[in-house]
This record gives sequence, C-alpha cells and structure tokens, in this order.
Amino acid sequence: MTIFVFGHKSPDTDSTASPIIWAWFLDHVGEPAEARLLGTPNTEAQFVAKRWGFELPEQILDVEDGQPVVIVDTNNPAELPANINRAEIRAIIDHHKLVPGLETKNPIEVTIRPLACTATLLWQLMGGHGGHAPEGIKGLALSAILSDTLEFRSPTTTPVDRRLAEQLAQDLGIDIPSYAAEMFAAKSDVSAFSEAELLRMDSKEFTVDGMDFRVSVLETVSPQQILARKDALMAAMPQVAAEDGAQQVLLFVVDILNEEATMLIPNELTKKVAEASFGATVSGDTVVLPGIMSRKKQIIPSLKVA
Amino acid sequence: MTIFVFGHKSPDTDSTASPIIWAWFLDHVGEPAEARLLGTPNTEAQFVAKRWGFELPEQILDVEDGQPVVIVDTNNPAELPANINRAEIRAIIDHHKLVPGLETKNPIEVTIRPLACTATLLWQLMGGHGGHAPEGIKGLALSAILSDTLEFRSPTTTPVDRRLAEQLAQDLGIDIPSYAAEMFAAKSDVSAFSEAELLRMDSKEFTVDGMDFRVSVLETVSPQQILARKDALMAAMPQVAAEDGAQQVLLFVVDILNEEATMLIPNELTKKVAEASFGATVSGDTVVLPGIMSRKKQIIPSLKVA
Repeated sequence: MTIFVFGHKSPDTDSTASPIIWAWFLDHVGEPAEARLLGTPNTEAQFVAKRWGFELPEQILDVEDGQPVVIVDTNNPAELPANINRAEIRAIIDHHKLVPGLETKNPIEVTIRPLACTATLLWQLMGGHGGHAPEGIKGLALSAILSDTLEFRSPTTTPVDRRLAEQLAQDLGIDIPSYAAEMFAAKSDVSAFSEAELLRMDSKEFTVDGMDFRVSVLETVSPQQILARKDALMAAMPQVAAEDGAQQVLLFVVDILNEEATMLIPNELTKKVAEASFGATVSGDTVVLPGIMSRKKQIIPSLKVA
Repeated sequence: MTIFVFGHKSPDTDSTASPIIWAWFLDHVGEPAEARLLGTPNTEAQFVAKRWGFELPEQILDVEDGQPVVIVDTNNPAELPANINRAEIRAIIDHHKLVPGLETKNPIEVTIRPLACTATLLWQLMGGHGGHAPEGIKGLALSAILSDTLEFRSPTTTPVDRRLAEQLAQDLGIDIPSYAAEMFAAKSDVSAFSEAELLRMDSKEFTVDGMDFRVSVLETVSPQQILARKDALMAAMPQVAAEDGAQQVLLFVVDILNEEATMLIPNELTKKVAEASFGATVSGDTVVLPGIMSRKKQIIPSLKVA
C-alpha cells in the first residue's frame, strides 16, 4: 500500500517541500510513497514547487483507517487529519516542540530535532542518499531551509541548516540572496487574500494560561501592504477566533528584512499579552517588537496573559 | 545544572542500565549528568549492576520544576514522575509506542526506534563513542539487550540488537548463554516478594476498549515457582487493581526457555480477554499461550475485551 507523506494543515514551504522530498527518498529506497497536502499551500510554497518543476501534490481532507502515513513537520494532532490516530503512522519527523495527542499501536520511528527546518533533518536521515537526489529535490530542500530560516535571519537557524543550504545552493548554482528575494516576494504577495484568509494563512493554536489563542504570523518583505489593512484585519479577528474555537487571534507581521515584528493590538487582552510577554509598551493599535522573527523560538515560549 | 537521566518506574534491567550508560556518555562529551531510578530495580537489574561494578543509582520520587532531564526507555507520563512536564526535558530516547502526554516548551531531541532495547539505540546515538566506553558500560549494554530480548528469543529482537550484543560479548570475553542463564536465574528468584509486589514488578497500564488494565509480565526460567502461588496471586488482583486505579490486573508468566506464557484466569472478564485477544480456549484458572513472549509486540497489540 502506498505510503502518504504529509506535513501540517495550511502548508508553508517546508510542509509542501518536505513531503515531496521524503516521498522521493522512500521511493528511491524501494518503499512506494506519495506526497499529499492538507490544504492549499501558501504563495511562496506554490512559487517554489513551480520553480523546481513539481506539480502540487494532491490535497486530502482526511485519511482512511489503516492508511500508512509518514508525518513530517508537525507532531500536533490539531494540525493533522481528524482520523490520524486510526491511520497506520509509520514515522514522525519533526522539528517542533512535543505536543500530546498522537498515539501509535506499535513502536514506530520518531525523530524530532531542534533544527530550523524539517528538510535539514530529512537530509540527515537520508545519509548519503541526499547526494543522489535530482536537482528538483535539492532545490526544494534549499527553498525550505531559506523559508524556515528567513534566509538565516531567524534565531531558529542552526549551523547545520545553514551549511546544508549553502552546499545545496553551490551544487545547484543558485545565488542565495537573489533566490531568497524571489521567494520572499512571492510570499509577500498577499493581495488576493481576504482578511480571514490572512489570519489563517500561517497560524497555530496554543493554550496559554488556560486561554486558547490562534497565533498567526505573516512573514513579509512588504509589511506596509499588510499593515494598510490593519483595521479590517482586527475587525475580522473575533469571527475567525469564534469559528476556529479560539478565544483570541494574535497577529504578528514579521518584517523579514528589518528583523522585527509588528503585533496588532485590537483590545485590552492583546495589549496585556504584548506587555506581559514581550515587555512592550503599547500605545495605539500596533506595537513593534524588535528582533522578533520566530513563533517557535521567540513568540510561543514567551507568551503569557498576565 | 546536572542532568538527571532516568527510565520508567518499576525499573527493569534496561531502565536501570540505560540511564547509567547515557549519563556516562553525556559526562564523556562534557555535559554533567547522573543516573537516577524511579523505584527499586528488579532482582535481575540488581544482579547486573553488581556484576559490572556499579552502585545502584539514587532513587527519586519526583523532579523539581526546571530540573534538566533526559528520559530513556519510556515516553509514557504514567511511568514517570508526576511533575515531569514541569521539568526541563532535554531529550527522550525510547523504543515503545508513542503515548500522548509528554509536552515540552521548546523543540527537543526525541528519538524513538522499534528496536528491542533502549541500550541498542543509545549505542547508535553515541556513534563512535561506544567503542571507548569502559568495560562496565559495555557490560550494562550487553545485559540490557539480553534482558529485553530474552537472549534473542523475543520477537522484538532485531538484527541490530543481536549484532551489538554479540560484538559487546566478544569485546568483554563473555559467553552469552552462560551469562544470560545467570541473569535469568537472578530474575527468577522472586521468593522474597509478596503477591502484590509480584503483580507490580513488571507492569504497565493500558486502556483497552475503554477498560483500564494493569498488564503484568513475569519473565522466568522457573514458572512453576510462580504458578505454585497462583491462588494467592489471583486473590491479590482486585486490591492491586483498586489501589492502582485499574479495573483488572492481567498476569502473564513468561517461560523464557519454553517460549510460552501462562495467563492467569481469575474470572469471566479475563477469560473473555484471553479468548478474544489470543484465540485461546480457556478451561480452568490458567491458559498457556504458546509463543507469547513480548508484552510490547504480542500482548498489547492483540488485547481486546470482546
């Protein structure tokens, strides 16, 4: 039975590229596998797939009982199909904090490492096979690392991620700064999306001090394009929160080039969160958080309500 | 701050040896670490520690907030200190099925592999360092593999476990059959224990079809020594179950040399479990299950109530 490899819902570049990479590897070592997507990938991921000659993988809404799957780039059941614990999970390969919820019937392979990018970990697990990967697969890995590290600007970046990206770029004859600029331009072109879509584009749910937050991040080289819509974004927050079972949406607009985040402050609660979590002084409906680039490494570990 | 390395409660040989092995390795690579035990190790583990010149590690009941820890040989919070999610979990290294419950604040190193023994996985993760381990550390690893594989008889045994054990035995000048016989004799000497202690000695809790079972295994080369006490063991089951919050204790006496298990059948429920799970025909208060050696690979995946 063909193994399905997929990442998290609301796929970004890593969760689009890593399933394709790992399905290639499994096939390469004789285990039939195909990549799947749990939703429409973001504009950067679509640009990357096209740039390296890949059709976007088929989207699925759920998995059948007993379907063999490999999960990459998440271990959080909230970001996976509802039926995931009835699938046959063969392996989990991830770089996020451990979240309770996934359960298997037998011992399986679980590999989680504090690297910036799942693709880096895949390359480690492949051993020598990565060297034999076709150009397209190498290009996906390079793209995923540049995306997750924001071209090595994010504090999640490790020397292992950076060294691999530089080696792949050299193999492929790619100039990292100009290629990364193309990728970030693709990610920053969000004019086609509604406010609700923007709030859900790169968003994860977390419970902090007993409150459920949807923590949304928009990484962009054109923050003014998003911040020009701040009133409409704040107005859309209550409905998005209610529909998704959260109490509050927190939106961080990450300015990739200036290495700072602007947090929207629609109400007293978010003001308190900004002050308690980041020591910010808030006056008005936005606050700039210098140096904040990473939800995983900076935002989530700091988050508190009071 | 010194890292504490520990395995599961009711420590067996793997959960006694692997913390000592990994603490040695962390120290060896410059990270101060010490092994700890979550309870009194079984008689085999005590024999093994003494045989290779180790004092038993200090026992602890719980961990402080923020204590750096490495968890080996389990990922199940029910087998760990109550405060585990408030410790600073640095890594989890295990060979059991994934169970929901552990949670970390940041991405950490999680490595789970379907190997027979944690010590085998530790040796893989150490890379070349294992070759530089002192004799005692090698002896512990050999012992843990022989214990978990029941000298390669258990179906959990992988070629990787077996090859490592054989290599270690060769390095150490140990004759595996005679050393394993000594270990199993130590494990089989359970005359000093009460029935309640026997039922808890090597026991894990699982929920099956909505019922909570305490699944106890006694691996022995002298099954008659235990089965001679079957009436008293069955009489002790209701109280042990009640005290431990389970609905029923299931006891499997694994005959290492004859490669079979004898399950105790104190009531209609356990009879139904034996019939539904193992296709056994039960008449009387025990049933022999040919070939059943492994809770992890054979008992738990088969368990059903009806």
